[in-house]
Amino acid sequence: MDYNKKAIEMHAKWQGKIEVVPRCRIEDRDDLSVAYTPGVARPCVEIRDNPDLSYTYTRRGNMVAVISDGSAVLGLGNIGALAAMPVMEGKCVLFKRFGGVDAFPLVLDTQDTDKIVETVAAVAPSFGGINLEDISAPRCFEVEKRLKERLDIPVFHDDQHGTAVVVLAAVLNSLRLTKKRIEDLKICLSGPGAAGTAITELLIKCGVKEVILNDKDGIIYDGKEGLDFKKRELAKITNFSKIRGGLKEAIAGADVFVGVSAPKVLTEDMIKTMADKAVVFAMANPEPEIYPDKALAAGAYIAGTGRSDFPNQVNNVLAFPGIFKGALKVRARAISDKMKIAAAKALASLISDEEIRPDYVLPSSLDPRAADAVADAVAAAAVEEGLNRI
Amino acid sequence: MDYNKKAIEMHAKWQGKIEVVPRCRIEDRDDLSVAYTPGVARPCVEIRDNPDLSYTYTRRGNMVAVISDGSAVLGLGNIGALAAMPVMEGKCVLFKRFGGVDAFPLVLDTQDTDKIVETVAAVAPSFGGINLEDISAPRCFEVEKRLKERLDIPVFHDDQHGTAVVVLAAVLNSLRLTKKRIEDLKICLSGPGAAGTAITELLIKCGVKEVILNDKDGIIYDGKEGLDFKKRELAKITNFSKIRGGLKEAIAGADVFVGVSAPKVLTEDMIKTMADKAVVFAMANPEPEIYPDKALAAGAYIAGTGRSDFPNQVNNVLAFPGIFKGALKVRARAISDKMKIAAAKALASLISDEEIRPDYVLPSSLDPRAADAVADAVAAAAVEEGLNRI
Repeated sequence: MDYNKKAIEMHAKWQGKIEVVPRCRIEDRDDLSVAYTPGVARPCVEIRDNPDLSYTYTRRGNMVAVISDGSAVLGLGNIGALAAMPVMEGKCVLFKRFGGVDAFPLVLDTQDTDKIVETVAAVAPSFGGINLEDISAPRCFEVEKRLKERLDIPVFHDDQHGTAVVVLAAVLNSLRLTKKRIEDLKICLSGPGAAGTAITELLIKCGVKEVILNDKDGIIYDGKEGLDFKKRELAKITNFSKIRGGLKEAIAGADVFVGVSAPKVLTEDMIKTMADKAVVFAMANPEPEIYPDKALAAGAYIAGTGRSDFPNQVNNVLAFPGIFKGALKVRARAISDKMKIAAAKALASLISDEEIRPDYVLPSSLDPRAADAVADAVAAAAVEEGLNRI
Repeated sequence: MDYNKKAIEMHAKWQGKIEVVPRCRIEDRDDLSVAYTPGVARPCVEIRDNPDLSYTYTRRGNMVAVISDGSAVLGLGNIGALAAMPVMEGKCVLFKRFGGVDAFPLVLDTQDTDKIVETVAAVAPSFGGINLEDISAPRCFEVEKRLKERLDIPVFHDDQHGTAVVVLAAVLNSLRLTKKRIEDLKICLSGPGAAGTAITELLIKCGVKEVILNDKDGIIYDGKEGLDFKKRELAKITNFSKIRGGLKEAIAGADVFVGVSAPKVLTEDMIKTMADKAVVFAMANPEPEIYPDKALAAGAYIAGTGRSDFPNQVNNVLAFPGIFKGALKVRARAISDKMKIAAAKALASLISDEEIRPDYVLPSSLDPRAADAVADAVAAAAVEEGLNRI
């Protein structure tokens, strides 16, 4: 199928992929008097006196904002607010379709960190959670950090943490096949931007001891010139072996390669230098760092991409609908690392010992069990940490 | 029916009166590839190159934001963002139910004029129009004025202009019965707040020569001490007879009384001092300035209120769904006075010469013809003024 042609045709037909519909009927005067004036004054007064009732009497308890400034959309880069909207609407469709979560897209006419933070904080009472989307690094880190400090509802930059959760699930399931221990892994990550940073941090949180990060200027190490504030932070928790060089040096001896960088940067020769039972997740879009057939031919044991036309697709849709569904279920104040790790473990465990194979370490993106499994695990983790309101 | 009790019961059951639903199906991999990645990149790129396509490929062309800071909600006053939400959701339900317009509620965690303006401007690319709601006077005038200057989509404070349109329709139809000319009317208006100000300005724009405004400090006149900036403006276009005093003096000899003030401020004795064939629209909520039976007993010819349990209900729902529907239809850049006047005339004309009676000068709030009649008139007026994009 020519997806480009079909997408234009269908988007013109849909005239928007979402709509806002009533959950109550308005057929007569009595209906009006209950859903609107004068009856509506009662829930208003009750919420005024007890703000937690906003979760009961309004849609807030199931409503997430999908917010973007259009600065880093898909592989298209900085295309701005209006042009980012088809992606944000699509995201909202997936929220509802897979998690039963209502989501509304807000694209912002600003790319200024302060203004983004002020805008999101201002509209926050309308929502039970905030999903940040396609905001460029390193600005996205600052935006998320400040909003998390300021708001008492979950704030989650999906490009970072959704990806990290699914990669962690894939790595955990790979370990079941390679029989390696997470503490012993050496991981090479190419492209420490929004996703790469979150993946690195989550893997380390889960016990990985050595990650080597490589960006367009080569391997990152503590004290390197020209690093932005976030990469300076990363340099302190990675590359303890203090190696230098480029991707070739970074990947040598690595157990796992994680690519969130650029098409075709990885060669078969590089794969050959990896450790035994090498795992390669090459997620550059639309073209991976190396195609799976080549990676496997060069000796990789497990290969995955971001694409739906190869096995082991790393797709955020496995994570975000369930993560928010779980967080909203217990009216969580935040989404913590423990909640993310619980999500990854729940995803991984959907594949049984009988089913797991090198070409099946992640459930299908359309696996109908994913959202509920993730939601239950996330809700339980939130309760365990005391981040729940109910 | 006990609307309070029923409203609490139903709001708890609904758990929100709106929801966001997909307009496209996602059942398999192909669906995902068309509605989301990789296909979605095409409409994104086309919008980047031609921003007007955002009206075609996203929901923006039918999507209105219902925005409130919770500072003047119903008769409840400043109850804040969370508590305002049931009203805003109700408004969104009415938008869809009567106008087929998608509307999404945003309640703001700020009541600062600058911050409201910045927030609304920042989220504006997500919408085809902005409906401001329940923002207190005189701040609402400044907020609306600045947003109208800044945005190229309709910005409409419904408490002001929606009410003004319906009152104008009621006054126009009253003239059909009283056989008076609009230029000859003397109108007494009690309560020049958000609604009262807009009513005054629209009536004057339509030919009314003399309006006497009365607030809690008595009749407003040019040069009076203690008036806020908006009332100083109003003083220059009203009360050319330069009368002073209170409501009693203001209403003496008036052809029309318009009340958007406080319960029971009007007495039967005051009604008796009005001109022949007096018209009384007493719209204070929930209790009018004078009940219709008393007004009629005291000699009024036509009486109306804001309530659904009396004839001639002045209800904004007759106007806003159609006004936005019409504006969106032609992708209007703004909602002008001419568009509002066209809306009022369209509403008035729904009642034929055969049907019109003193207790039927306004269509029922549930009249299924209202939205389309208003929409067509508004769209035509926008085209006439060149405010349309298509």
